[in-house]
Amino acid sequence: MTGTTVLPDEPTVSPAGTAEVRVRLAYARIDEVDRPEVWITLLPLGEAVAAARAVDAQVAAGAALPLAGLTLAVKDNVDVRGLPTTAGCPSFATSPAGRAGAAAVSAPAVRALVDAGAVVLGKTNLDQFATGLVGVRSPYGAVRHATLPERVSGGSSSGSAVAVALGIADIGIGTDTAGSGRVPAAFGGIVGIKTTVGLVPTTGVVPACRSYDVVTTFTRDLDLGVLATRLMTGADPGDPARRAWPADVRLGLRAAPMVAVPRDDDLAPLSPGWRAAFDDAVAAVRATGARTRTVDLSGMLDAARLLYDGAIVAERYEAVGSFLEHAADADPTVATIIAAGRDITADAYITDRARVATARVAALELLDGSDLLLLPTTTEHPTIAAVRADPVAINRRLGTYTNFVNLLDLAAVAIPAGSADGGPFGVTVLARAFDDQLAVDLAARLLGTAGGLLISAGGVEVLVVGAHLRGQPLNPELEALGGRFERSVGTSDAYRLVALDTQPRKPGLLRVGSGDGASIAGEVWRLSPGALGRFLADLPAPMSLGPVELSDGTWVVGFGCTVEAGAGGTDITAAGGWLAAQADH
Amino acid sequence: MTGTTVLPDEPTVSPAGTAEVRVRLAYARIDEVDRPEVWITLLPLGEAVAAARAVDAQVAAGAALPLAGLTLAVKDNVDVRGLPTTAGCPSFATSPAGRAGAAAVSAPAVRALVDAGAVVLGKTNLDQFATGLVGVRSPYGAVRHATLPERVSGGSSSGSAVAVALGIADIGIGTDTAGSGRVPAAFGGIVGIKTTVGLVPTTGVVPACRSYDVVTTFTRDLDLGVLATRLMTGADPGDPARRAWPADVRLGLRAAPMVAVPRDDDLAPLSPGWRAAFDDAVAAVRATGARTRTVDLSGMLDAARLLYDGAIVAERYEAVGSFLEHAADADPTVATIIAAGRDITADAYITDRARVATARVAALELLDGSDLLLLPTTTEHPTIAAVRADPVAINRRLGTYTNFVNLLDLAAVAIPAGSADGGPFGVTVLARAFDDQLAVDLAARLLGTAGGLLISAGGVEVLVVGAHLRGQPLNPELEALGGRFERSVGTSDAYRLVALDTQPRKPGLLRVGSGDGASIAGEVWRLSPGALGRFLADLPAPMSLGPVELSDGTWVVGFGCTVEAGAGGTDITAAGGWLAAQADH
Repeated sequence: MTGTTVLPDEPTVSPAGTAEVRVRLAYARIDEVDRPEVWITLLPLGEAVAAARAVDAQVAAGAALPLAGLTLAVKDNVDVRGLPTTAGCPSFATSPAGRAGAAAVSAPAVRALVDAGAVVLGKTNLDQFATGLVGVRSPYGAVRHATLPERVSGGSSSGSAVAVALGIADIGIGTDTAGSGRVPAAFGGIVGIKTTVGLVPTTGVVPACRSYDVVTTFTRDLDLGVLATRLMTGADPGDPARRAWPADVRLGLRAAPMVAVPRDDDLAPLSPGWRAAFDDAVAAVRATGARTRTVDLSGMLDAARLLYDGAIVAERYEAVGSFLEHAADADPTVATIIAAGRDITADAYITDRARVATARVAALELLDGSDLLLLPTTTEHPTIAAVRADPVAINRRLGTYTNFVNLLDLAAVAIPAGSADGGPFGVTVLARAFDDQLAVDLAARLLGTAGGLLISAGGVEVLVVGAHLRGQPLNPELEALGGRFERSVGTSDAYRLVALDTQPRKPGLLRVGSGDGASIAGEVWRLSPGALGRFLADLPAPMSLGPVELSDGTWVVGFGCTVEAGAGGTDITAAGGWLAAQADH
Repeated sequence: MTGTTVLPDEPTVSPAGTAEVRVRLAYARIDEVDRPEVWITLLPLGEAVAAARAVDAQVAAGAALPLAGLTLAVKDNVDVRGLPTTAGCPSFATSPAGRAGAAAVSAPAVRALVDAGAVVLGKTNLDQFATGLVGVRSPYGAVRHATLPERVSGGSSSGSAVAVALGIADIGIGTDTAGSGRVPAAFGGIVGIKTTVGLVPTTGVVPACRSYDVVTTFTRDLDLGVLATRLMTGADPGDPARRAWPADVRLGLRAAPMVAVPRDDDLAPLSPGWRAAFDDAVAAVRATGARTRTVDLSGMLDAARLLYDGAIVAERYEAVGSFLEHAADADPTVATIIAAGRDITADAYITDRARVATARVAALELLDGSDLLLLPTTTEHPTIAAVRADPVAINRRLGTYTNFVNLLDLAAVAIPAGSADGGPFGVTVLARAFDDQLAVDLAARLLGTAGGLLISAGGVEVLVVGAHLRGQPLNPELEALGGRFERSVGTSDAYRLVALDTQPRKPGLLRVGSGDGASIAGEVWRLSPGALGRFLADLPAPMSLGPVELSDGTWVVGFGCTVEAGAGGTDITAAGGWLAAQADH
């Protein structure tokens, strides 16, 4: 697995002019690579520099902008204020169905990144109306792969992925209904994060299938993708498709998770090179400390057919079909696919939606006992010529491991995993709906990076000082609740530690007063509110939870014990902590 | 408001033979009332008595059956093992689309009640395929009102409602898509509970509109309805339409809730008698201590039209349309309504679903700042003759305040509220999705009954002994978290209470050892895990939460404080509690 650079979660404090420098470097890189087909609308250098200067001025004035001066490429089915939105179809941008020339407001997902200091470079090419996984279905030209120009870039978010892979943009915004945020990541050797449906607002996005569209990020390193995704999540409280993180959302992946992997039969569509690379990826997963188990993927692979072969394709017609029937610049393959949705009855659609619901239940049953599912992101890396010769069949095969994911309400993180067949190879870590953080965490372990917290709100920091520390007997309780290790800390000097007469053996932390005790070593974990409530509900006497002061003067929820138990325990304060006290014996 | 009898939540311990006695009394009542149109399939007395004897035997053997010997009437679109399911259409029961003669298994919602000791009497009449709010659309005959036989019973769950209103069945199972579990309750002067969509499984139910169907209860008293609904909730983990209670679900209604009520204009469809009765109901709501505020209901009333006038009716066609086209015993009104769904395109359906999603956002905005919404359940109580003369328009008017509820993802509890126009009058308490308990709580206050806990799992009992007691300054914190007062208690004699130097003033509870302290008075509240986690996260020093022993020897999560704070406080143990200690001063 490739290493990546770590972008800290903390606000970037850019030196004066940094944003401008980054933008100028991006345009220099654009000139250098000569890939005009990446862009549908590229901002004039002067406009981008002006935006960068505004960011630099904000930073100079003390604004904390976590993405200050990072460059942003936006797929051209996502609105950016003042720019046309073509969705890969020139006449759409000016039509009443489209934005009548220019978008009046930016999509909230874009606005969230711009408000955080990102600078938009332009709007990128795509498979028309986000229908395709190849990157060649566009009147703006086939988007060639970043380093292997005879091969496809992958689609439909082709331009954004290549802009990131080529080092032009730091963040590429894509959209993903059938895999468009993942397949181009695999081909580009970059990271693609496709959250659970409904978390990132789709307001201001030209729909592909309303029910299953997700706005995604491409980045060269996972941590930046996590940060950008976190900023976009929940950015539009009025989004009718909005879903919020549950109160008991899991915030961390256990140290030794169970990862489901497909049977050999399920991997038959892979090219031999990709098949071998996937075996290596499974070995790499095991090397992180995870366990693996084989599951029968055939039910999921069957469910994938519902997206294009069944009535769900009517969603594509509903989105843009009536416009496309009269568009002279329609891509013929895309137009044929979407037109197939025209005469589908509501009856058939409702029946297929019921099939999707049943398949979701089956998927959850399949994942029972597993934290995550690891799949190859796609099957092979075809040439542009091969796709042109057979535009539908190859595209379909490329979606083997992606088409069912949004239908079945799974989250996905696509990451690079070495190389195969002379190009990048990629795998996708899949998780149940709202378990996005678990997928991020395994991806981070595979990439040797921090990953970071995707979930912005609601977590509670909890100090543990004894049997819940990592490696101690009760630590699995925190792991089972989706707890996340944050950092090692010490308390203020107001505490004493006593060894209690409990089973398993535990210490009790007692606040005796500032300066009357010592700093006691512990760990801060993060739990969702629901997990914390369950943890407290199951806490045995004589333990308690309440505010504890750390050595830096901050307070977190932490362990205590009753006066009665404290009085009966053996004072071990001098050891400075539970692990040290145990080592002393 | 009418008073109701209280059925305790605790398992009923029936004396030997009680179930049999109740069943025999039910059949005597059936003979007495002479309302054959209530039943589509009535079990032979001997079969019902045999089932009752089996319940009596279980109880005699010590089984704890909360519904032991209560009689159950099941709407004939819900499967009961061994019985036909006609959905009000005789030929459906024997068709391949139906149950081919008899249902092989009971719907999980029915099974949950039978497993709890309820005895099925039979299957009840309905507006065919649950399409209607009147109770006259059935080849099994119009179901006459329980006490005013020239008037309609209301539908579609007509037979179950009348069986309960007449005192034959203790529990009637209905279904509700457009108001079928509420309008008949209003006419019958009984209680109808329609939970948030997805909580009670619809497995084994002939769909009306898959996306919006809810299995409901009718009971003469609220508390039994709450108990039965609680038992049915989550009864089928494999239900594809299943939704679970959120981890931060609200478990109790604040003492002085804000209740939204409609503008005068929104009440124009009411008959003058019903209009006056609704004003009385609003006054009764205020008399419970609630505040009211007027909201503009026009957006919700408009959304109602999407159910029958738009493309959503395609769901009815998808459910039974192709069968109904060839059914000689189709009700002509029902057949016409459902046939309208045949030629609807998926395109139109998807567009209308998007409209529903937008209307949901608007509904949530409307309810912002309100805990609940109070509405008249329906507009008037028409005669059977009037409905026969104008079968669609009156039916439509009856759904004015019910049609939009499931579409907009609201929960509803319909309760009797006095009389109007010579018959029963009823109101409905509406709540946001998953706030079902809040609607139950206001209904209980209006009816002067306990109501009880609708939500079966996950709540955590929390002992408060000071500033969080009812009437004390921090009690609103518990209310804002959806906390539910459970009972007044005392701790075991292992505790001392000290007055702390905090703002607001609080006591600290310290466990000093069994017999070394005294019993301290407190209150047990119930919080969801998410609420408890948030409560703990916001707890200020020097307070803590951990297991506390009650005077009955049980332990609950309760308040404590640090050793340091306890040592610095003034001992007030002798007062026996915080309120008493304050009174002493």
